[in-house]
Amino acid sequence: MPTLRDDALTIINRVIEAALPETAVTKQLRALDLPERLTLVTIGKAAWRMARAAKTELGERVTQGIVITKYEHSLGPITGLEIFEAAHPLPDAAGIDATRRALDIVQPLGRADTVLFLVSGGGSALFEAPVAGVTLDDLVLVNKLLLQSGANIVEINTIRKHLSTVKGGRFAEQVAPARVISLVLSDVLGDRLDSIASGPAYPDSTTSAEALAIVQKYRLDLPASIRDALRTETPKSLNNVATHIIGSVRVSTGQASATARELGYSPLVLTTTLDCEAREAGRFVAAIARDVAASGNLPRPCAVILGGETVVNVKGAGLGGRNQELALAAAAGISGVDGVVVASVGTDGTDGPTDAAGGLVDGGTVGRLAAKGLTVDQLLGNNDAYHGLAASGDLLKTGPTGTNVNDLTLALIR
Amino acid sequence: MPTLRDDALTIINRVIEAALPETAVTKQLRALDLPERLTLVTIGKAAWRMARAAKTELGERVTQGIVITKYEHSLGPITGLEIFEAAHPLPDAAGIDATRRALDIVQPLGRADTVLFLVSGGGSALFEAPVAGVTLDDLVLVNKLLLQSGANIVEINTIRKHLSTVKGGRFAEQVAPARVISLVLSDVLGDRLDSIASGPAYPDSTTSAEALAIVQKYRLDLPASIRDALRTETPKSLNNVATHIIGSVRVSTGQASATARELGYSPLVLTTTLDCEAREAGRFVAAIARDVAASGNLPRPCAVILGGETVVNVKGAGLGGRNQELALAAAAGISGVDGVVVASVGTDGTDGPTDAAGGLVDGGTVGRLAAKGLTVDQLLGNNDAYHGLAASGDLLKTGPTGTNVNDLTLALIR
Repeated sequence: MPTLRDDALTIINRVIEAALPETAVTKQLRALDLPERLTLVTIGKAAWRMARAAKTELGERVTQGIVITKYEHSLGPITGLEIFEAAHPLPDAAGIDATRRALDIVQPLGRADTVLFLVSGGGSALFEAPVAGVTLDDLVLVNKLLLQSGANIVEINTIRKHLSTVKGGRFAEQVAPARVISLVLSDVLGDRLDSIASGPAYPDSTTSAEALAIVQKYRLDLPASIRDALRTETPKSLNNVATHIIGSVRVSTGQASATARELGYSPLVLTTTLDCEAREAGRFVAAIARDVAASGNLPRPCAVILGGETVVNVKGAGLGGRNQELALAAAAGISGVDGVVVASVGTDGTDGPTDAAGGLVDGGTVGRLAAKGLTVDQLLGNNDAYHGLAASGDLLKTGPTGTNVNDLTLALIR
Repeated sequence: MPTLRDDALTIINRVIEAALPETAVTKQLRALDLPERLTLVTIGKAAWRMARAAKTELGERVTQGIVITKYEHSLGPITGLEIFEAAHPLPDAAGIDATRRALDIVQPLGRADTVLFLVSGGGSALFEAPVAGVTLDDLVLVNKLLLQSGANIVEINTIRKHLSTVKGGRFAEQVAPARVISLVLSDVLGDRLDSIASGPAYPDSTTSAEALAIVQKYRLDLPASIRDALRTETPKSLNNVATHIIGSVRVSTGQASATARELGYSPLVLTTTLDCEAREAGRFVAAIARDVAASGNLPRPCAVILGGETVVNVKGAGLGGRNQELALAAAAGISGVDGVVVASVGTDGTDGPTDAAGGLVDGGTVGRLAAKGLTVDQLLGNNDAYHGLAASGDLLKTGPTGTNVNDLTLALIR
């Protein structure tokens, strides 16, 4: 009979498998009624794998196309597609050239044509071509000024969108009158489609007036060409686009829920936007888990599922990541409690600067640490969750997955 | 039609009302089959109010009794009872005299007699008489050495219980062969009955061997009389005691759940032992609330209920308390979200060094703060939640309640 740990691993593996670019693209393509001829445009860190999967599934129906991915993320030629690599997280000339090539391909398309647009994280840097009168150097300058000014990420993206020929829905505008079918693998919490890869095929919610107000607010000293560019509005509606989120933290918590149910657990997805401090999230999850174990407020066996991306304020010199800190802190909160496990994992398989994806702890973790002279407080104090979980045998390792739909946290209570 | 805020207030008020010493004692006494003659012993900060309620309910059936409460917590004479006031949180000679008087009253009792023992928080300091050969000064010395040594609260209490004639079940031992009916108003998370007031009428889970090991571990330099005292075992079982928890965080979350259901909400008690950082708990609760509002993972309208006691690491010079910090942090996480409120309240009515019990925030709180030039980050950075919630009109004030069954946190989602 499988243990709680076995079941937690099964759920995590199924979630990651479902979020792999190949699985997610293939599943969605099979569910769609697609035309006989498609132009493929794929952008982001998973672009090559998404393109390969689409080409495998659709074959000759893909008549032309382009792949724009990060350096070293192309894994070889794909028949019929042009493949470009470019810089991430900051754009470079190679990315701009590739993006202009993509526009060259889609601009001649007519009303009867369709672009299959596959989007993954990193698309914002990789898919970029500035508007007329603005250079790559200008973009670099604006970026630097914005970061120095203390502007927040929403403000920074508002400016960026208004300087781009593809961000903020402008790519879809350039594809028109052809149709866009957009498949999105989302690494943004809350699935805000105008944020993922800066929303090349989604109506923009930010305005020219907002962009100019931000310039004012931070007294940014910008060249006239840039100020002019900010005066042009991004599209507020698009009638040639259909969007499908094929992977996201919400899709993943749904997958976790379905798998938990299959394994006999009553699943409860508490949130998909967890964003507090990792170790405090661990304490909170442990408080839920030990109470469910003691009181039966939830039907058991029970799977409490959370998605999101917590944060770590690094103060120590140790090794770890947010999922490992969450798991280790939770271990202290369920110490000695039978029939409970807590797991936390980054779906990209890389938690912090480590070779682990996260941690999977139980009521015995603290005891196993103590046997090696380690305590949770000391380990967390030094941000050294990795070595703690390694010592207690509670590291989760999946290897890099090539996908990123944020983090999954899971408590199983018997 | 009542608003979410109205409903949150209704739930909070009902919880506090039910946890008042008078309500809790009276309700339990009416549910018990009590003998015709009772000796009353009441200890703790709520002792006078519990005694008054018992006397009102039972009248002449209380044939004798004693009340031991904190200085300034006696509100007048109660016919037939002896009333003593003493020091808290550290014991003093008045407390020891009162405790010895209680023992004088109960020791002559026989098999047919019953002691109604009413326990509330603070009992550990107020109800204390050291074993033979140990003085109040000895207790003070031991306490000081333990605190300097870095021993944790479990270790400190293990030592304390073994030096006391009433802690760790020894009071019930001295009442025997008479029966003890113990009614407990608990301020300890997890309702560990051997911890509440150091468990005078509950079998002790700590041992003499553990006490001696702690002395060894911290190399405590103790007089021989104290070392000798630690060698005597506390009772590991008691057959003359019946215990009823009449108020606790678990009782309160149950009350909140029942009231929420009455008001039409689907209640979910997530934990009764929340113990992480207040502001991070607020972020976590907000992540749940906004997600339930957006996704409908839980049946709506929904009441997510949590009990416990979070912590604040004070760094700023502002004014606030853990419930106010939790609520203010939650406000940022639900900003702009319709149909959600988050409330957090200390059942004692006094959150931190303020005249507020906590806070009640909604999707408009951040906007109301902004209108006054305030931000959540600034306020939390200065530990100044009180002035923030005052500015946004989101403080909860109940006045001191004279009861303490920890904190209640509540999210209502329409």
